[in-house]
Amino acid sequence: MKKIVLLRHGESAWNKENRFTGWTDVDLTPKGLAEAEAAGALLKQEGFAFDRAYTSYLKRAVKTLNIALDKMDQDWIPVEKSWRLNEKHYGTLQGLNKAETAAKYGEAQVKIWRRSFDVAPAPLPPEDKRGPAFDTRYKAVPPGELPLTESLKDCIARALPYWQEVIWPALKETRQLLVAAHGNSLRGIVKYLKNIPDGEIPSLNLPTGAPYVFEFDEDYKLVKDYFLGNQEEIKKQMQAVADQGKK
Amino acid sequence: MKKIVLLRHGESAWNKENRFTGWTDVDLTPKGLAEAEAAGALLKQEGFAFDRAYTSYLKRAVKTLNIALDKMDQDWIPVEKSWRLNEKHYGTLQGLNKAETAAKYGEAQVKIWRRSFDVAPAPLPPEDKRGPAFDTRYKAVPPGELPLTESLKDCIARALPYWQEVIWPALKETRQLLVAAHGNSLRGIVKYLKNIPDGEIPSLNLPTGAPYVFEFDEDYKLVKDYFLGNQEEIKKQMQAVADQGKK
Repeated sequence: MKKIVLLRHGESAWNKENRFTGWTDVDLTPKGLAEAEAAGALLKQEGFAFDRAYTSYLKRAVKTLNIALDKMDQDWIPVEKSWRLNEKHYGTLQGLNKAETAAKYGEAQVKIWRRSFDVAPAPLPPEDKRGPAFDTRYKAVPPGELPLTESLKDCIARALPYWQEVIWPALKETRQLLVAAHGNSLRGIVKYLKNIPDGEIPSLNLPTGAPYVFEFDEDYKLVKDYFLGNQEEIKKQMQAVADQGKK
Repeated sequence: MKKIVLLRHGESAWNKENRFTGWTDVDLTPKGLAEAEAAGALLKQEGFAFDRAYTSYLKRAVKTLNIALDKMDQDWIPVEKSWRLNEKHYGTLQGLNKAETAAKYGEAQVKIWRRSFDVAPAPLPPEDKRGPAFDTRYKAVPPGELPLTESLKDCIARALPYWQEVIWPALKETRQLLVAAHGNSLRGIVKYLKNIPDGEIPSLNLPTGAPYVFEFDEDYKLVKDYFLGNQEEIKKQMQAVADQGKK
């Protein structure tokens, strides 16, 4: 049985402060570090042995991956990082508090920004120094591909080529792959794997730090998918993520 | 100016216990973690911005690299891992205390095992489960290339092809590279870069966690090399490494 495990990063400083993060490179909190360790311990306990791992260009995902692999004593696994696995870019909302933004613009508007499929927040002005064009890590990306804001649709459109051209083909020559990334880039992969309609994917709230396992048969057909860990706890976490945009 | 920085991992559990480690995958101590953080802080302070980084298959080097990059806010840098950067394999000495071994076989013999150029300790028996053939991380390495013991000469012979075929060519298309590895695999690189004779290289004792910078001119000629950090402290550390094989 071939397996791919998706892992959303643990709590970051701005998750904790309930701020829109997007491409801002904030660190994990102590709780986030503990979530990454717990994910690694769970994967080890369940006997996972990865051949390769993938992550984004953002430290909260890279560190979640490094910590989980270390906990599994699999620090040596080849890791590939790509900007295509980054979180959705939140434009001018980046840095703003979600509840304050809801109080100012209304919960309905924030829900649209957070959870509509194809509406993007206002873009950063091109001269805004927070934009990816000013960040050396993106220097190899053609400037036309660097976003100043993204809808979920945009985020999925730039994440999926990496899935289709790099991660999925790698499964042909391996048994187990690990992808540590973000709520929205992972939504894109789950949407693709489970054929979830555009209108439904925004309400999929992935819990942080809970390994999400996809099993494939010899014809690479998805056989089953499930979260590792305490199922009650996972349900609660998914609800908590859904509630973040409330006042 | 193009630069390559060599970084020997921080203190490991077996460094602390004064045991021969070799390919045994022991973790960093709290002191070792702090050394990695200090190295990252120093590199950041000196304005280093790496294009790529390289490390071994052993967690003490991988973690030193991850921690240093994180401290620099350069978690996103591409990292390549290779077994060729592993520490020298210490054969049947792996796990034994260096001072006890000196008491048993004499300091002179231990010095030969630790610091001769071409004498290797007794090899692990092929059926010994500690051997690399039993470790899944080496499954892609042709079995004939996996050592059961190594002299410094053997270690350098398998490390240098990686330097010549991967790291050095990468400098053509980049400005700054970081290599986090081990006392003996790094000796091989330093020997090559500085043309150090066989008889002299064993007495080069690289301090742990002190970034060792090599600067090259536009013709890729070595211009200068130096350690970052407190120079007096570095000298003391080099002496301490030299003294480990005493009773």
